[in-house]
Amino acid sequence: MLSLAIAATAHADEGMWLFNNPPLKQFKQKYQFEATPQWLEHLQKASVRFNSGGSGSFVSANGLCITNHHVGADALQKASSEQHNYSKDGFYAKTNAEEIKCADLELNVLMSIEDVSAQVNAALKSGMSPDAAGKARENAIAQIEKDSKDKTGLRSDVVTLYQGGIYHLYRYKRYDDVRIVFAPEQQMAFYGGDPDNFEYPRFNLDICIFRVYENGQPAKIDHYLKWDSSGPNDGELTFVSGSPGRTERQLTVDELADRRDREVPNWLQMFNRREVLLNAWGQRSFENARRARHDIFGDRNNCKRYDGYVAALFDPEIWSAIEAREKKLREAISRDPKLKATLGAYDRIKKAQAELVKIAPRYDYLEQERPIAVGYRGPRALYGTLFKYARFLTRAIDERAKPNGERMAAFRDSAKESLELNLFSTEPVYDDYEVLRLTDSLTDFAEKFGGNDPLVKQVLAGKSPRVRAVELVSGTKLKDVEFRKNLYGKNAGALRAAHDPMLDLARMIDGPAREASKGHEAQEEIKRQAYAEIAKARFAVEGTSTYPDATFTLRLSYGKVLGYKEDEKQIPPFTDFAGLYQRAAEHDNKPPFDLPRRWLDRQAQLNPATKFNFVSDADIIGGNSGSPVVNKANEFVGIIFDGNIQSLVLDCIFSDKQARAVSVDSAAIIEALRKVYDAGALADELEKGRGN
Amino acid sequence: MLSLAIAATAHADEGMWLFNNPPLKQFKQKYQFEATPQWLEHLQKASVRFNSGGSGSFVSANGLCITNHHVGADALQKASSEQHNYSKDGFYAKTNAEEIKCADLELNVLMSIEDVSAQVNAALKSGMSPDAAGKARENAIAQIEKDSKDKTGLRSDVVTLYQGGIYHLYRYKRYDDVRIVFAPEQQMAFYGGDPDNFEYPRFNLDICIFRVYENGQPAKIDHYLKWDSSGPNDGELTFVSGSPGRTERQLTVDELADRRDREVPNWLQMFNRREVLLNAWGQRSFENARRARHDIFGDRNNCKRYDGYVAALFDPEIWSAIEAREKKLREAISRDPKLKATLGAYDRIKKAQAELVKIAPRYDYLEQERPIAVGYRGPRALYGTLFKYARFLTRAIDERAKPNGERMAAFRDSAKESLELNLFSTEPVYDDYEVLRLTDSLTDFAEKFGGNDPLVKQVLAGKSPRVRAVELVSGTKLKDVEFRKNLYGKNAGALRAAHDPMLDLARMIDGPAREASKGHEAQEEIKRQAYAEIAKARFAVEGTSTYPDATFTLRLSYGKVLGYKEDEKQIPPFTDFAGLYQRAAEHDNKPPFDLPRRWLDRQAQLNPATKFNFVSDADIIGGNSGSPVVNKANEFVGIIFDGNIQSLVLDCIFSDKQARAVSVDSAAIIEALRKVYDAGALADELEKGRGN
Repeated sequence: MLSLAIAATAHADEGMWLFNNPPLKQFKQKYQFEATPQWLEHLQKASVRFNSGGSGSFVSANGLCITNHHVGADALQKASSEQHNYSKDGFYAKTNAEEIKCADLELNVLMSIEDVSAQVNAALKSGMSPDAAGKARENAIAQIEKDSKDKTGLRSDVVTLYQGGIYHLYRYKRYDDVRIVFAPEQQMAFYGGDPDNFEYPRFNLDICIFRVYENGQPAKIDHYLKWDSSGPNDGELTFVSGSPGRTERQLTVDELADRRDREVPNWLQMFNRREVLLNAWGQRSFENARRARHDIFGDRNNCKRYDGYVAALFDPEIWSAIEAREKKLREAISRDPKLKATLGAYDRIKKAQAELVKIAPRYDYLEQERPIAVGYRGPRALYGTLFKYARFLTRAIDERAKPNGERMAAFRDSAKESLELNLFSTEPVYDDYEVLRLTDSLTDFAEKFGGNDPLVKQVLAGKSPRVRAVELVSGTKLKDVEFRKNLYGKNAGALRAAHDPMLDLARMIDGPAREASKGHEAQEEIKRQAYAEIAKARFAVEGTSTYPDATFTLRLSYGKVLGYKEDEKQIPPFTDFAGLYQRAAEHDNKPPFDLPRRWLDRQAQLNPATKFNFVSDADIIGGNSGSPVVNKANEFVGIIFDGNIQSLVLDCIFSDKQARAVSVDSAAIIEALRKVYDAGALADELEKGRGN
Repeated sequence: MLSLAIAATAHADEGMWLFNNPPLKQFKQKYQFEATPQWLEHLQKASVRFNSGGSGSFVSANGLCITNHHVGADALQKASSEQHNYSKDGFYAKTNAEEIKCADLELNVLMSIEDVSAQVNAALKSGMSPDAAGKARENAIAQIEKDSKDKTGLRSDVVTLYQGGIYHLYRYKRYDDVRIVFAPEQQMAFYGGDPDNFEYPRFNLDICIFRVYENGQPAKIDHYLKWDSSGPNDGELTFVSGSPGRTERQLTVDELADRRDREVPNWLQMFNRREVLLNAWGQRSFENARRARHDIFGDRNNCKRYDGYVAALFDPEIWSAIEAREKKLREAISRDPKLKATLGAYDRIKKAQAELVKIAPRYDYLEQERPIAVGYRGPRALYGTLFKYARFLTRAIDERAKPNGERMAAFRDSAKESLELNLFSTEPVYDDYEVLRLTDSLTDFAEKFGGNDPLVKQVLAGKSPRVRAVELVSGTKLKDVEFRKNLYGKNAGALRAAHDPMLDLARMIDGPAREASKGHEAQEEIKRQAYAEIAKARFAVEGTSTYPDATFTLRLSYGKVLGYKEDEKQIPPFTDFAGLYQRAAEHDNKPPFDLPRRWLDRQAQLNPATKFNFVSDADIIGGNSGSPVVNKANEFVGIIFDGNIQSLVLDCIFSDKQARAVSVDSAAIIEALRKVYDAGALADELEKGRGN
């Protein structure tokens, strides 16, 4: 009989913990480890959030920051050209002067956490309509953020935790002068390609190293991780500090069933569609393949990830555990007369969700681009970089005219620098690639709503999707950064007067998009308030010594290096370089199992026993990519780059039976830098913690 | 200003004509060509239908039959093993003894056509309900087919033409001992891969040569095409004889809008999903890639084909032409008092279509496998070879107990041999590949109807899709041909007593599937009768000197070898071998533009000026693949293998502005056989019309 062993918190290495509410008790009881405030502060401030969607850490006093290749890939892609394909071929700057400045990368370091729940909740008066309550809360949040930023100069985000049970103010130091130092060939970073993605054993050098600058000089970093070149041991306790994207562990069974039966399949349709589109186009020429490289990677990754998530949700054992979890809480609530009224919240969520389902298509196609919190890329109906700029510009100017507290979050004063970094990106824009994606997304839109839909007709303006896309892309001036900067400094009248077809389309569709957004928000607000009620009841039942769902903010996870059993086979926790060469040989060194020339040439120099990748049972998900793995001494022993397929269930429930986090070993990184990439100076800086 | 030039019949080389109603007038008026009855009979009887979904022709008195590689690929795939990948690497039998017998290939040669409209219509009494009328007609058709087969021994199919305006009895000679003689590497057959598919210029040796046997000996063929080794000239009139699969040129605007907005996008979702699935699995190992090869090709081909079709339907110019076509007919009908009542048929179709939309999901997932008329592969929810056998067996036994006229068409006496050929196929079945596809289709099913759907629950039997698929595939004995043969000889009780999990599932789901089918058929019957009414009105208005929509039965098309203009560039009609080598060089000989070793080695021997592929404006669509192209002397000058992307609109409307049929030149075939494949004996047989 199968047993998934959905673990009880007490026994397992569960949790994505807040740095101001860490699992000190578990550390002590289970591992006899005492995490001091200094230990925690050091790890927190050495941790770096990549706003392109991932995590990283400082690893030298001179601003070196390490993350995954697949996190850095967005920057590598934007820095590449037909002449230099850094994303595919790798890059190494031997000197500071050779480092390449990123087009629009923003890194955030969490400097402080402050509980502002009382301030936020004070804005809510009893008897307020959901709509009024939502507005009042948003206004309060905007004010807190603005005040904090004005006072400290730091990026200030109010983070909603425990589904609205608690509000924290996170203050970040921003870095927006970030330069590329080192990347291996994508082939090595993503060795085994799509077939090996989310699998184990693995052999991936999924790293990318940046350097942050301030005032044109490498930044001086106080809190950076000391490098341990020998990596962790089997069974050793390790810690992971990073920004997991989103978990749904507190979702009601009803909402999760809708996610399983409708929402995720809908996302998968989109990702499947895009994978097929980009794959076909990318095969036409090397340059096409280069242009689409990063997006193909992302779409494939999402296809596989959400396939795995759906598979987990259709596993009756997992589903029973999810049902049991809710049943237990509901029973505890119904036993307590003070909490009993909270049961109504479940019904309100169900009702709101049913309303959301009805309006979802319009919202999905006009407003939300994709199920990823980070990196807005335009709505599903109008996919591409140019429409994204058009929407940003249109909304930036419209929103600017409103009081700060009433604006959409991305356009508040506190987010100004981040918006401008995005809007004035120097990312290359390719007409053919824009036309390809816009044609397909316009077709998708027309298919979804039908050729007779009035809005479809209005958007297509009597033309075929392809003709319309060509007209928009070739007619717009938004490719030009100066054009964007110039208009951004003006007003809505100037936008209109520009007679730019992409801007005109963005303005035309903004009404329907905002309307869809408003309808969506109204229901989300009902859910938010209901979930907040449930969260408070949960505090009353379970206490507050637990962790909230992930929100792409900094969290602390922990776990031991640990193999697992699959199909009756014991999977050992470590792989090594010898295994890499063996795997390549088994596949005749053919893609996606081929080794780059350099790795074939240098085989004899490498120590084959060097540990390459390892697994641990730390509780991580997407967004944790690039998170440092540290030992008790707070030393860097590895870097998270993936979870195995069994870990995809962690989105909604924890299990440590087979779910594993996959990391690159710190030993492999040093060995490869020195022996394969002739990057001795960089390896020295990592091992010494500072450059020369 | 663009002008698509949707051509009027009189001026264009339009039409997929019946062999008993050929466009003699057009031949004469436009080309001063007189097609004699002997000329027509010869071409008809030299034409071969591949029941795996394509066309071909006899090209020697000793049974040689040529088609496309992508038509023969099904047989090549089924003949291949881990040791011999004929589909990828090609094959050549130097002697008859080396030829490989196909697992389940059936070829049909049309021997006679008889109009049986009167007999069919006599079964319909006025005042019958649609349901009763449908049954009466099906019964009459079954009787005609049975009588004909009993009398002549020939396969006898009643074909519904002009949407029910006319019924013809087609009698075919069947060949089911078919052996593989020659195939090039798939790389050459499908040179340029997915990127070049449906494009032009092209460089494909898309051919595959079989030999038909009777009584263990090469069949003696009276009507075979004489080979012209120099190919056609620019502007030359050519004829195409083959079995186009399905056109929708008489569909109402309402139904075509539903096709555009719902049905084709729905198919595309399925094909996208499968392409992503098989692609990822195929990348894991060479053997996986080999097993999935033919299916990946099919899914990609369908993705691109239907993308092109949707793009055409969303082209306002094409859509206006479609609307104008219907408007013209409706106006003519409404002007004629005798026809006016027919207008109600349009409304009945619209209403029935709306009903079909409601029940479509159940029907699609439980009954219809895919939008392809040929080659049943199991329903969408239960995709795979093993379930296909389970359903065939279950239904064969259930239907056998009914009177012939009341059975589903595939299980009538007249279809017995074809059914048995399929059911007793020796096609290899791979457990892992079956599990992969079944898991995915069960997941697709669960996503579509939701995890709480009672039928989903019943099918999954409390297990995850993957666990259920493993249980079904590893538990069934249907892999064993003898097991299938044995049960086929028994009755429903024996099927039940076998306690085979796949058979049990097929029986369990047969009730809901038949119910879905019944609901579907009821509406289709209403449409069928309404379309027949419109067809009769069309005859009254336009006369009968036109061609019916394609039905995967033999048709005659014609057209001249003719280049076209695309993006202001003139595309010449011919390519040559020199162009092939140039294209490979431009792509560094990397996939999908790489040349097989043999072609690199033999370059110097080949005449670079040999014409390779050519285009003509003949009216063809899918199903025509492998059709011979003949000149006025009825000589083989080429073989159709594709249409360009602009031809995908031909499904629903004719245009000769850019739409082109793409063929391999007969000259290239001989040159390649002699100089690259050392297949001189085969080339001799083609040029002489007989073996030694």
